[in-house]
Amino acid sequence: MRILVSNDDGIDSLGIQVLVEELKSLGEITVVAPLKEQSAMGHAISMKNPLRVIKYYKNGEFFGYAVDGTPADCVKMGVRNILETPPDLVISGINHGSNTAVNTVYSGTVSAAREAAIMDVQAIAISVTSHTTTRFDYAARVAKLLAYKLMTDPLIPGSFLNVNVPDLEEKDIKGILITKQGKSKWDDVYEKRRDPYGRDYYWLTGNMVESDIAPDTDQGAISCNYVSVTPHHFDSTDYATYELIRKWKL
Amino acid sequence: MRILVSNDDGIDSLGIQVLVEELKSLGEITVVAPLKEQSAMGHAISMKNPLRVIKYYKNGEFFGYAVDGTPADCVKMGVRNILETPPDLVISGINHGSNTAVNTVYSGTVSAAREAAIMDVQAIAISVTSHTTTRFDYAARVAKLLAYKLMTDPLIPGSFLNVNVPDLEEKDIKGILITKQGKSKWDDVYEKRRDPYGRDYYWLTGNMVESDIAPDTDQGAISCNYVSVTPHHFDSTDYATYELIRKWKL
Repeated sequence: MRILVSNDDGIDSLGIQVLVEELKSLGEITVVAPLKEQSAMGHAISMKNPLRVIKYYKNGEFFGYAVDGTPADCVKMGVRNILETPPDLVISGINHGSNTAVNTVYSGTVSAAREAAIMDVQAIAISVTSHTTTRFDYAARVAKLLAYKLMTDPLIPGSFLNVNVPDLEEKDIKGILITKQGKSKWDDVYEKRRDPYGRDYYWLTGNMVESDIAPDTDQGAISCNYVSVTPHHFDSTDYATYELIRKWKL
Repeated sequence: MRILVSNDDGIDSLGIQVLVEELKSLGEITVVAPLKEQSAMGHAISMKNPLRVIKYYKNGEFFGYAVDGTPADCVKMGVRNILETPPDLVISGINHGSNTAVNTVYSGTVSAAREAAIMDVQAIAISVTSHTTTRFDYAARVAKLLAYKLMTDPLIPGSFLNVNVPDLEEKDIKGILITKQGKSKWDDVYEKRRDPYGRDYYWLTGNMVESDIAPDTDQGAISCNYVSVTPHHFDSTDYATYELIRKWKL
């Protein structure tokens, strides 16, 4: 199996290192990941500035290619320019922090998998639900399990998996659930500060409003100590609304 | 009607100016738009750097608030911080260049509307299909027509409209069609160059592959000289795949 690995926390993060170690036994792994942290970069791509590709070494050994762009840039660069032929699979992660509900819109981790899906490559985004955890071993094994699964049961073109793993010991995890994107959103607050020159600036802060812990949602599964596996597609047409508004007289 | 207007081309672009002029007769217009061009920024938001809000004047008159962030930042800032209560509607545009098919994933214009939808505000993204056009009058009237429509027939929470207007004289436009996101994608190429110091860098280039001009798609409508109106949702769950993979034994 040929797997391209990326993330949004940056090529030097622990999550991607543990993932790569676990996946090595599956075949040929190529890492193409951001040089710097790219959280909340959404599906941004670099068109106004060119990209550089840097060979990145960990403990004296070649680890992968660092790109001074976004997660979507990394996947595009890996598939279109670094690899000679497209990989069998792209895995993005393991992210430090959950990517459930509306976070899937903002997440660089998820965008890397979405970019692969756009290029007709099977893809998985995987996250552990804590920003401060160092517990990635079980999540890495879940990624490996799903990698196997996608090789035997591939998703339709354009679809990809978004996986969230509770930050718990493996014995406390109840299982793996197939879920939908939940409806939880952010209660945003802009914190106003004044710089040393008397000018105002604003920091985005806020809390996720856990409005949707229905058991068939990503956030619901996590809250009950299950791994959530949500299939997404890069086509975001609202088909129900499409049927409804086709009757509009415009 | 209280309308928040944003875009991704920047507060000084012609498209947003023509749109604001047209919408003024509808009520209270507040412009919150990027200080600098933010094309292809996807749904990025600023969390690692704070934002500044600058009062922007055009021809000596107050035009709106410029934010040194992304389109999604502008809408968040406008709804959560600048306006005292949420607006009735957010309109993003008029974009210089089409936002059909997979471009909806990368587009800052579309992300501004999606951000409004996330905050339960009715929203429209609107684009004219040429990067170099100055023909925005008809598109501005389409925006106004759809603004009226959404006030009487609001979309479900989370849904928003993505509108593309052919760059033609009004007499050559055949009508308005409700459409789906098409399947056209990009044939990406990285153009390699060498900097004056002997180091390589890569520019993303490529062409949209017009693989999908089915008449019920955005790109299909445009190619037949119709305005396309596509309903999108910020929930990108692939429900068909969800039903399918629920049977997986994991």
